[in-house]
Amino acid sequence: MSTTFRGKDNVAMDRMECSRCFEEHRKRYVAEWQELLRFRSISADPGCHQDCVACARWLADHAAGMGFETRLLQTSSKPVVYGERRGAAGKPVVLFYGHYDVQPADPLEAWTAPPFDPRERDGRIYARGAQDNKGQFFAVFKALECLAAARALDVTFKFVIEGEEESGSRGMTEAMETWRDLLKADVLMVCDTGTVAFGVPTLVMGLRGALHLTVTLHGPAHDLHSGSHGGKAPNPAQGMARLLAGLHDPATGAVNVAGFYDEVRAPTDRERALANEHETDAEAYRVATGVAPVGGETAFTPVERIGFRPTVEVNGIHSGYGGQGMKTIIPASATAKVTARLVPDQDPSACMSAIVRHLEDHVPEGLRLEIPEQGVAGPGFRLDPEAPLVHKAKSVLDGLTEHKTAFLWEGASVPVVSSLARVTGAEPLLVGFGSEGDRIHAPDESYSIEQFKLNYLYAALLLVNL
Amino acid sequence: MSTTFRGKDNVAMDRMECSRCFEEHRKRYVAEWQELLRFRSISADPGCHQDCVACARWLADHAAGMGFETRLLQTSSKPVVYGERRGAAGKPVVLFYGHYDVQPADPLEAWTAPPFDPRERDGRIYARGAQDNKGQFFAVFKALECLAAARALDVTFKFVIEGEEESGSRGMTEAMETWRDLLKADVLMVCDTGTVAFGVPTLVMGLRGALHLTVTLHGPAHDLHSGSHGGKAPNPAQGMARLLAGLHDPATGAVNVAGFYDEVRAPTDRERALANEHETDAEAYRVATGVAPVGGETAFTPVERIGFRPTVEVNGIHSGYGGQGMKTIIPASATAKVTARLVPDQDPSACMSAIVRHLEDHVPEGLRLEIPEQGVAGPGFRLDPEAPLVHKAKSVLDGLTEHKTAFLWEGASVPVVSSLARVTGAEPLLVGFGSEGDRIHAPDESYSIEQFKLNYLYAALLLVNL
Repeated sequence: MSTTFRGKDNVAMDRMECSRCFEEHRKRYVAEWQELLRFRSISADPGCHQDCVACARWLADHAAGMGFETRLLQTSSKPVVYGERRGAAGKPVVLFYGHYDVQPADPLEAWTAPPFDPRERDGRIYARGAQDNKGQFFAVFKALECLAAARALDVTFKFVIEGEEESGSRGMTEAMETWRDLLKADVLMVCDTGTVAFGVPTLVMGLRGALHLTVTLHGPAHDLHSGSHGGKAPNPAQGMARLLAGLHDPATGAVNVAGFYDEVRAPTDRERALANEHETDAEAYRVATGVAPVGGETAFTPVERIGFRPTVEVNGIHSGYGGQGMKTIIPASATAKVTARLVPDQDPSACMSAIVRHLEDHVPEGLRLEIPEQGVAGPGFRLDPEAPLVHKAKSVLDGLTEHKTAFLWEGASVPVVSSLARVTGAEPLLVGFGSEGDRIHAPDESYSIEQFKLNYLYAALLLVNL
Repeated sequence: MSTTFRGKDNVAMDRMECSRCFEEHRKRYVAEWQELLRFRSISADPGCHQDCVACARWLADHAAGMGFETRLLQTSSKPVVYGERRGAAGKPVVLFYGHYDVQPADPLEAWTAPPFDPRERDGRIYARGAQDNKGQFFAVFKALECLAAARALDVTFKFVIEGEEESGSRGMTEAMETWRDLLKADVLMVCDTGTVAFGVPTLVMGLRGALHLTVTLHGPAHDLHSGSHGGKAPNPAQGMARLLAGLHDPATGAVNVAGFYDEVRAPTDRERALANEHETDAEAYRVATGVAPVGGETAFTPVERIGFRPTVEVNGIHSGYGGQGMKTIIPASATAKVTARLVPDQDPSACMSAIVRHLEDHVPEGLRLEIPEQGVAGPGFRLDPEAPLVHKAKSVLDGLTEHKTAFLWEGASVPVVSSLARVTGAEPLLVGFGSEGDRIHAPDESYSIEQFKLNYLYAALLLVNL
């Protein structure tokens, strides 16, 4: 492979070279990927802190073995793995961002095999983090290794792999300003997103921002007998049901919080048209998820709701008895986990205030509201479909498969991406190969070796073409 | 003590004799009571079945040692402990009912000491079941022992202590008809109720019936990423909040289920007046429970709501993530535990049908309703304040303390009582000494030795005066 392979005609050849390199090392790549998946790097679980640190050390050592200068950047929480490889003068500087932390694995009993004991079944690797994000960033690592060995890597490549993305990226966000010079770059490359359909190269044109809060309603000082007190003591489980039900308008599905939509930026006609080119196939969605795409606001199409509209979601409710049979109590309290997804130009702090105010204004009589945890994870952002970097990425992706490249306005959040873009001055470029069937954040998460390979080919071809 | 002590003037003397007997044996009584409390006889927990059986055997042996002919009556589930001691011909036959099973003990971490390791603190015995119902029925056992030893027991006394009251009394209810001759009695004596205030003798004039159901809303086949799917996939946690919130009218607190109130029997003016003599002291209630008595229907006083009005209560809700930090999912399902308390003349099966129909009619779009468990635990009932047995019990209670006897329409259920009354032809008489501070069904349940003694004195004095 040579850096002289450039332009549309040569992309196919580059693809062949890269593919040959992948197949040659495939077995080792998969084994190393599985090694990475064994770390229980759950950032939300304080009991997994040492696993996170061990995972970061393993990555730094691994990248050092690939010819990178690596080190751990300390934060107030999990270390960030930093690596750098100098390229030719005058060539662009690429900053790659990923995260080695993963979501909690519960409910454990819903997994076919243990979540941190990766297994290959039918061409897929099953484990927590198999896709999100270990699978995706590790494919890029292996692409770099291939280019470096072929002396085909002439850009300066820096990477930061953080350990707190699933918990709000607090440590990295706090420390980022102090790394401004270190992380300075032209392009911010991120592979933590999905495709509109399995194998269809997809440019992510936007991500939503997020905030989260834990909501508790306190009632009786202890559980009360629901016979002796039913109809007399206020019931926190019922109060929580009412409080949460009041967050949405049952008729329109809209968030019922005053001021929540005030700053929402409407999509341009072109954005809306591009998004609706990949309208959700209701039947395919039902097969993949088990439900029809009927959540959210009735006034918008599913892709518009995901791409251009904010939401408030209840992620969990826990109150009182949940075992077998019955337990006739009025529970002492009820707790809900709530997140919101935000779009440009909503301000996360203003949205948080609006939600908290709404909750405070609607506490059912006799109960006491507490918000023991809350945090904002950055605003949403959108790319311009006409930007030159978007065009370049599109031409690489157009040559990758037989599919036309799709433009996707994602519903998920990569909270630090907009902060990183701002601090480093780099232009974000979000391409990933995740698919509905990967079950990220859920039991039996997996990533196919086929997706891993596309991820690898894209990274290699983009880097030789920048 | 002698059975010649009769009539109003002698009650005081009987009380002294019985009290002397209690004080003489107090230490042994408490030790035996604690022995009984060590059995983990949780009927709702299949893992405790053998503990229930062991508890039943212990009771049968214990009562045999007190001079009763005892045996275990088998049911489809837990055995019922039966005992009998023949009295003088022409004397009334008393059937005593109690239950040796207890509520689940969770949340375990909320207990000061382990729930099945009874401890005495400040004159109270702390353990699951200390009051409900082991403490209350065991006080009656010890009163019988005292009367028998003094040859003062001339009524025929039968008892049934069942092991499934906290789970709907299924086994006993099914088998009861076949025991019709065995259980035939004049008076059905039950000590499983409370007092209007600590130490105030209280005649329970009614109990509510009950039904229970488990309600599950199924959504996605697995938890979904709330970023990628929020605003697209229907959310079972939010759906459950809406479904449960819809069970009550937020303005009036009334149950919002069509037909639910159709057969409710209104109290007579005298019943309402007697009930309101013991209106809830809002401040005392707040001290005892931590909440103001503001639950339920706004159109009725708290004692009317408890005594004469049915309710629907949510006993628990469980869905999605409940750990530390956040987990950004749309949960696959949500489950709620729901009970209703019923009054005369509501038919439990008709009420169950009405609630199920309501739930079916209000399933949020895109979700699937399942009702994996349901059961009815008998109708409510009310006694006539002018019945002769009520008058006799009142005269015994009037002599027990310095307090005037109270009439109480209870909100709790003793599901088999109305069935037992019907099958045996016996007139029910419900007097117990439970109090707000006993925390039945909750962590740190306890019963004071003082209450236990009142329980004992009442039983002894009633039996010598029948």
